[in-house]
Amino acid sequence: MHGEIDENTNRPKKIIKKSQDISQWYTEVIIQSELADYAPIKGCMVIRPYGYALWEKIQEYLDRLIKKRGVKNAYFPIFIPESFLKKEKEHVEGFSPELAIVTIGGGQKLKEHLVVRPTSETIMYALYKKWTRSWRDLPILINQWNNVVRWEKRTYLFLRTSEFLWQEGHCAHLEHKESLQTVLWALNCYKKLYNDLMAMYVITGTKSNTEKFAGAKKTFTIEILLPGGKALQGGTSHDLGQNFSKAFGWTIQDQNGKNVYPYQNSWGISTRSIGGLILAHGDDSGLILPPKIAPVQIVIVPIYKNDNKEKIIEYSNKVKDIIKKYRVEIDLREDETAGYKFSKWEIKGVPLRLEIGEKERLTKTVTLVRRDTYERTTESIIKLKNTVSKLLKNIQTELFERHKKFTEQNTHVVNNYSDFKDIMKNKKGFIKAFWCENPICEKKIKEETKATTRCLPINSTEERGKCVYCGSHAKNRWIFAQSY
Amino acid sequence: MHGEIDENTNRPKKIIKKSQDISQWYTEVIIQSELADYAPIKGCMVIRPYGYALWEKIQEYLDRLIKKRGVKNAYFPIFIPESFLKKEKEHVEGFSPELAIVTIGGGQKLKEHLVVRPTSETIMYALYKKWTRSWRDLPILINQWNNVVRWEKRTYLFLRTSEFLWQEGHCAHLEHKESLQTVLWALNCYKKLYNDLMAMYVITGTKSNTEKFAGAKKTFTIEILLPGGKALQGGTSHDLGQNFSKAFGWTIQDQNGKNVYPYQNSWGISTRSIGGLILAHGDDSGLILPPKIAPVQIVIVPIYKNDNKEKIIEYSNKVKDIIKKYRVEIDLREDETAGYKFSKWEIKGVPLRLEIGEKERLTKTVTLVRRDTYERTTESIIKLKNTVSKLLKNIQTELFERHKKFTEQNTHVVNNYSDFKDIMKNKKGFIKAFWCENPICEKKIKEETKATTRCLPINSTEERGKCVYCGSHAKNRWIFAQSY
Repeated sequence: MHGEIDENTNRPKKIIKKSQDISQWYTEVIIQSELADYAPIKGCMVIRPYGYALWEKIQEYLDRLIKKRGVKNAYFPIFIPESFLKKEKEHVEGFSPELAIVTIGGGQKLKEHLVVRPTSETIMYALYKKWTRSWRDLPILINQWNNVVRWEKRTYLFLRTSEFLWQEGHCAHLEHKESLQTVLWALNCYKKLYNDLMAMYVITGTKSNTEKFAGAKKTFTIEILLPGGKALQGGTSHDLGQNFSKAFGWTIQDQNGKNVYPYQNSWGISTRSIGGLILAHGDDSGLILPPKIAPVQIVIVPIYKNDNKEKIIEYSNKVKDIIKKYRVEIDLREDETAGYKFSKWEIKGVPLRLEIGEKERLTKTVTLVRRDTYERTTESIIKLKNTVSKLLKNIQTELFERHKKFTEQNTHVVNNYSDFKDIMKNKKGFIKAFWCENPICEKKIKEETKATTRCLPINSTEERGKCVYCGSHAKNRWIFAQSY
Repeated sequence: MHGEIDENTNRPKKIIKKSQDISQWYTEVIIQSELADYAPIKGCMVIRPYGYALWEKIQEYLDRLIKKRGVKNAYFPIFIPESFLKKEKEHVEGFSPELAIVTIGGGQKLKEHLVVRPTSETIMYALYKKWTRSWRDLPILINQWNNVVRWEKRTYLFLRTSEFLWQEGHCAHLEHKESLQTVLWALNCYKKLYNDLMAMYVITGTKSNTEKFAGAKKTFTIEILLPGGKALQGGTSHDLGQNFSKAFGWTIQDQNGKNVYPYQNSWGISTRSIGGLILAHGDDSGLILPPKIAPVQIVIVPIYKNDNKEKIIEYSNKVKDIIKKYRVEIDLREDETAGYKFSKWEIKGVPLRLEIGEKERLTKTVTLVRRDTYERTTESIIKLKNTVSKLLKNIQTELFERHKKFTEQNTHVVNNYSDFKDIMKNKKGFIKAFWCENPICEKKIKEETKATTRCLPINSTEERGKCVYCGSHAKNRWIFAQSY
């Protein structure tokens, strides 16, 4: 199972340059590195083992944080009766155009159509209502890892697919203050996940009323700037207020015996994040994976001829043993040349390659090549463990710093609409501009520049400014960008 | 969030006795212990955190074995085009009556209906074909953890639900021999899982042609006898031969450049297994969970009055700290009496209860109560760690031995059909009887006694016998039972 081969060079088919056509590069690198593939169903994809291993690392990291908070995993049905979805007005309006609907079950036409969940608020909260009577039964702290469906006609691998995998946390509290603490805690988990595991720089903020989740009081978001200058919404955490408890008529008795509506929140991150990871770090030769999330952190490529094959392989295995605490693979495939293997593992973005030939064997050394910088060093095997540890740490840190610098360099403080239009047409990136918070200006800007409000960054201090579109009074600089 | 309360006693509502009505007991114990609940969709259930924690333990145990074998996790779409399912004739016939079908997507009627996967052979193998060219691309070793839908009208919590969670492994090999090794390896993993983690005794064997998986050459099965005398199919591993590769026209080049059809297998275990766990060990007071799978292994119940509350809680926390390597909970709920708490944790099946009152505090001891035997011991906290370790080990072993003994005592060697009918009418259990392997006898036996062939046990030695139904020549004793 490997990617397409160029029949002339017998090496992996060259992928298009990232700088030349980032969208084409993105697709080619995913297919060639075997992260994923198109499924024979419109809008759907297959996540192959190499791509799924990334999702497993994300799950592992986040699940630990979730459990530490006392939130517990559960599982609710994939089907939601149509009538449930209709209980919260904004919610059903937001999701209606994207639904997949089951009309036949067990050979019979169903009396009530079932929606394949696009998100689980309505089905979960029907049960929350059943399970609780008093304030003692709160908080409810539940999360689920599952699949959801939001209909798409065209597949954009990872970033836009009809079915995707995610986690959805749904908590309920007696007090609004507590609920808001959970909302911000979840947002902070996502930030940590991106910064620490995925070496990605993010902006956290709140969404405008137009861009918030259908049914939320306020949506908090993770915004990520990606090469090509477009933004990805990397995860969201919603303060639902009492919107859903009221829609479901869900009350409980508080400490004074009074019936009150609980405050709720929901928060999710999906396999879309992997699309961001690919775009943020990759280069013309393929993926670049940060060591902490890389399914394979180090690949050993032995270089031998028939007469020294056995000894080189023996030595390579010895080297592998020294660094076995890392995720190491040794590539012994017989039908591929060393050059082919180098390209193959470069496309796959393995952070560190160890080359082992006759010279290395005789001098008891190893040649190390960094994927991100192509820096080569030769190191004695006595020092190898330390060197590898340092290199992997450096790669992780430097990838984050590089993405941070990229984001900063492509964030433009803009004070007039002509600059705004110019930047969105040419350079793209994040624009920081005053906006009066009138949805009409927001709509016009979107129509004329394709840029949407991404967020009002957290901890923004109020200033005196004029809306970049209409000139009216504005309190804050919002972040605008074109979106994936 | 706790189960129903008896308003007279203010204690958890008494569940019906297991011996009185096992089916009613089963449902009541699941609801009251908060393992799961009915969903407001026909045939569906909600797995609550306490139940999902059991599934997480199963996943953790099995995923480690799966990865150790080199099988990797991936994810394939939930939707399968109807035409795909039709490619393997027996397969589509087997699954057709159970399908949930999406006919509307994104607001439009779909040209081709999409089936919500009942299993993923057809969608996965279409991709396997795309990904491979030669013998070097084999074996393919892929597993997925996901949800599947097989339409049910009535819900039987865990045991029979329209949607369930499972893993499905799908491997492809060049040689039949290798494929069969994988089939048997998977079967053995399931056996280990039941024996070791779930303290359940199982029989492994092969299914009859009537009972095998739709599209398989041979199905290997895990059969479990449960109180009430019915059998549960606890997991299956299928040798698919070349049935699917032929149906899909999937060939690859072997070492000699010849086009050959790969040999395939698939194997799965689901959340049904949790139904088996509940039935196998529980008693009149509720669940009994084996320590290795119990989400809470030890519960500490402090018993205090207003004047010694602080000191008792302090001492209880100290005790908790001593045994923190286990999954321990300390129950500090203020609105429940100690007696209520005892019943609550008994229903939840926590293996070990630690009672801590004034006497224990003053003598630096703890009173331990086993859930399975109600045996009480008092132990000094100096020896507590050792005692707990021993007790948990003993409970795990003794639960297995008890279930093994139960199975053996309810396995009847039968040589004539009148005994057969009599046992199936009264005692139930496993029957070992000669069967000529003619599906007509199998069908008649099923019609007349509700018993189906469960399996031909692995390593059965051939004997000379006469079919218990028709008297014809028979080589082996098969296991018969009524089934869940």
